[in-house]
Amino acid sequence: MTNPTAAMLVIGDEILSGRTRDSNMHYLAGELTRIGIRLAEARVVADDHAAIVAAVNALRAGHDHVFTSGGIGPTHDDITADAIADAFGVAIDHRADALALLQAHYDRSGLEFNAARKRMARIPDGATLIDNPVSTAPGFTLGNVHVMAGVPNIFQAMVASVLPKLTGGAPLLSQSLRVNRGEGEIAAGFGALAAEFPDLSMGSYPFIQNGAHGTNLVIRGTDPARLDTAMVRLVALFG
Amino acid sequence: MTNPTAAMLVIGDEILSGRTRDSNMHYLAGELTRIGIRLAEARVVADDHAAIVAAVNALRAGHDHVFTSGGIGPTHDDITADAIADAFGVAIDHRADALALLQAHYDRSGLEFNAARKRMARIPDGATLIDNPVSTAPGFTLGNVHVMAGVPNIFQAMVASVLPKLTGGAPLLSQSLRVNRGEGEIAAGFGALAAEFPDLSMGSYPFIQNGAHGTNLVIRGTDPARLDTAMVRLVALFG
Repeated sequence: MTNPTAAMLVIGDEILSGRTRDSNMHYLAGELTRIGIRLAEARVVADDHAAIVAAVNALRAGHDHVFTSGGIGPTHDDITADAIADAFGVAIDHRADALALLQAHYDRSGLEFNAARKRMARIPDGATLIDNPVSTAPGFTLGNVHVMAGVPNIFQAMVASVLPKLTGGAPLLSQSLRVNRGEGEIAAGFGALAAEFPDLSMGSYPFIQNGAHGTNLVIRGTDPARLDTAMVRLVALFG
Repeated sequence: MTNPTAAMLVIGDEILSGRTRDSNMHYLAGELTRIGIRLAEARVVADDHAAIVAAVNALRAGHDHVFTSGGIGPTHDDITADAIADAFGVAIDHRADALALLQAHYDRSGLEFNAARKRMARIPDGATLIDNPVSTAPGFTLGNVHVMAGVPNIFQAMVASVLPKLTGGAPLLSQSLRVNRGEGEIAAGFGALAAEFPDLSMGSYPFIQNGAHGTNLVIRGTDPARLDTAMVRLVALFG
């Protein structure tokens, strides 16, 4: 497939310790699929400067876009912005436009715009801000890396700010057929069909319901007519 | 921390397309934390031979243990076992003990033990089998890589088969305090406390409930007495 590719980097000890179950990856995967950007890889790393730098540099070299979540708040464990600056070898400092956004926000809410909150205006040189309609503190895009918050509703709002600016490809379509047979029974026919349609991707996902084995057969691709043709064949085989 | 470290590799197009939300990473994270193995990194890759080989080799070199999920079923898109064999540079073929397990299983269920199902007995040379009490088809351990199924209840059963054989460390403990203040208000004091306890890890997780900002403050470490000492200080600051 010639669609642009993306990678996601989830940053946070709380995911790897099992305290929090990440939901941002699944959300982003669905949004990217819709606009024809193929999420090719995802990683989760701890709040560890070297690990973030290494992952960002590996992923931005291999994909058209990298999306990060987590670690851009006001507390000491929020180290993502500094790590991104280091990954790109650029400086980072408080930026006037980000400070102004936050100043106005805290003026409205009557809260003190203290040093911790000012940390959220530290932006690597050369970045553009990502709008945060939920809680004001911006994300940023540097090169092909889009740096966003980890709190799911803020992450989703930032994704909504970023995606319209990106060039996607043909939407990644899928059709599926649910069959009440185990994978082992459909494997030969399904594999032969997949070999006939090398431009499509076919996957088989088993389930057990009320003690009985079943399988969801999924066909993915970008050409609706080819998907329809393959689905007709699939239904003839197993429908 | 001197606890053993682990990485997880989730394998499957269905996760990256957004069709399926992975739950195995969160499950494994909790189980490893309990036995004192620190999950340091996780990755998700597609059903792509080269991507699996590269990720397995990167992760097994960097961690004491690697756990994979997905891609060991009977269909054409199940390519994990072959990729693991290639990553280690060993041969792979149908193995007598795995065939015998599966033959007995299909004899009991009256289903044909066909070529597709026999694929699940293909095991890389030198591996040991991982018991699958749910659906018989085994996982396997090769070197420090534990290869397991993606279906959550089978994955969990395989984790239960593997973990008792591993040497963990001191359990990774955590205590938390929920405060009804935004992160920006607690950041300075919390950061200063974290700096006083470099042997502990302190994280701050904001939330919004009924329109009000709050923060969960989490302290992690292996020494229960140190955790208690830090929690007393934390409660005095923000309780």
